[in-house]
Amino acid sequence: MINTENLKQCLREFAAVRDWEKYHSPKNLVMAMSVEMAELMEHFEWMTEQQSLDLDNKTREEVALEMADVLIYLVRMADRCEIDLNDAVKRKIALNGEKYPPLNDRANKK
Amino acid sequence: MINTENLKQCLREFAAVRDWEKYHSPKNLVMAMSVEMAELMEHFEWMTEQQSLDLDNKTREEVALEMADVLIYLVRMADRCEIDLNDAVKRKIALNGEKYPPLNDRANKK
Amino acid sequence: MINTENLKQCLREFAAVRDWEKYHSPKNLVMAMSVEMAELMEHFEWMTEQQSLDLDNKTREEVALEMADVLIYLVRMADRCEIDLNDAVKRKIALNGEKYPPLNDRANKK
Amino acid sequence: MINTENLKQCLREFAAVRDWEKYHSPKNLVMAMSVEMAELMEHFEWMTEQQSLDLDNKTREEVALEMADVLIYLVRMADRCEIDLNDAVKRKIALNGEKYPPLNDRANKK
Repeated sequence: MINTENLKQCLREFAAVRDWEKYHSPKNLVMAMSVEMAELMEHFEWMTEQQSLDLDNKTREEVALEMADVLIYLVRMADRCEIDLNDAVKRKIALNGEKYPPLNDRANKK
Repeated sequence: MINTENLKQCLREFAAVRDWEKYHSPKNLVMAMSVEMAELMEHFEWMTEQQSLDLDNKTREEVALEMADVLIYLVRMADRCEIDLNDAVKRKIALNGEKYPPLNDRANKK
Repeated sequence: MINTENLKQCLREFAAVRDWEKYHSPKNLVMAMSVEMAELMEHFEWMTEQQSLDLDNKTREEVALEMADVLIYLVRMADRCEIDLNDAVKRKIALNGEKYPPLNDRANKK
Repeated sequence: MINTENLKQCLREFAAVRDWEKYHSPKNLVMAMSVEMAELMEHFEWMTEQQSLDLDNKTREEVALEMADVLIYLVRMADRCEIDLNDAVKRKIALNGEKYPPLNDRANKK
C-alpha cells in the first residue's frame, strides 16, 4: 500500500555522502526518531483537541516538516533493520482488525 | 517518493466502522503515536549498538510491527491535519541537504 | 528543595546486587526512562483534559506507579551523570522565572 | 525517601501568578514532560554508551537543566493528580524488588 523504495535509496545515499553510516545503528536511529516525534508533539502540548483540528497555515507547515522527519527516520531505520515496512503495515492492519472488530460485526455476533 | 493514498483511505474506513473518529484529534493521535514509538524503542534500550544491527528473527518481526504502528498513526494524523506527507518529505530532504552539505561539497568549498 | 540522597543510595544498591551496573549508561537509562514516560502517557492518550483531572482510584494508582518509574530512572541517571538534581532544579526555576515573568511584573513594566 | 512538598508549593505559586492553571491538565502536563524528556535524550542520541558516561562540563550542565525540567513537570503533574510521589516510589521499589530478585536470592533458591 505504501512504496518506500525510492525514499530508502535516497536516504542511503544521503547518509553515505556525509559519512553518517557509522552513526546509523538502529539504537541511535530510534533515539533520533523519538526526538523528532517529541518536536512534533511540542506543537500540540497546550492546544485543545479542537485547536489541534484547526491548525493555521504556519503551524500546519511546521507540523508537516516534523512529520517528515519522523517518516525519514522510520524509513532509514527499517532499511538498517532489513524490514519491509509495507509488508509490516499490511500484517499489522490485519492484526488490528482482528483485535478490534468493526461495530457491525460486534452487533451481528450478539 | 512515497504514496500513502491507499493507506490513508484504508485507515479512514478502519476508524469510521469503529466509530473512532471522535477520538482522532491530532492532539490525541500524536500522543498515541508517541506511545507506539516508545514500544519500538523498548526493544533497543539495553542493547549495544552492534546488537541493534544484528536482530534475531523474532525481535525483527516484533520491531517491524511496532514500526508499522508508528507509520499507521503518522499517515492517519497527516490525513486529519490535511498534510501531504510525500510533499513534506521532499521539502524536508531538500532543507536537510542545505543544512548538512555532503562531505565532497564541503571539501570543494575549502 | 528536594532531597534525593536516600533514593540514590537505595538505587545504587538495587543495581549492584542485580549486576545491572554494566547496563546503566546514561544513554541506556534515558531510553528506559523515555519508555516509562510513554507508559505514563498511554493512560491519557484518549482522555479529554477534564477526564485527566478526574481520575478514578484504579487509574490514579496505575499513574502513580508509572510516575514512580520515571522518578526512579531520573534519580538513577542523575547519579550516573554525577548531577545534583536539587541544585539543577533551583537553577532551572530561577531561569524559568526570568524567561516567563509573572503577570503582575509584566503589568508593572507597561 | 524524597520530599517534594516544598517544590510542589513553589510550582503551584509559579503557575498561579502566571495564570497557567487552565493549561495544567494532567493530559497537557504529560505531553509537556515528554517533550522535555526528548530534549534530554537528544544530548545522547549519537553518543556511544562510554561517551555518555564521560560528559564534558558544558554538556553535563545542559543535561542537568533538562533533567530539572522533567522533575519539575513530574512534581507538578503529581500535584494535579493528587498523587504522593514519595509513597508511590516506595511501593514501586518494593514491587520491582519482588519482580527482579537479587542475584544472591536467585542463587539461594536453586
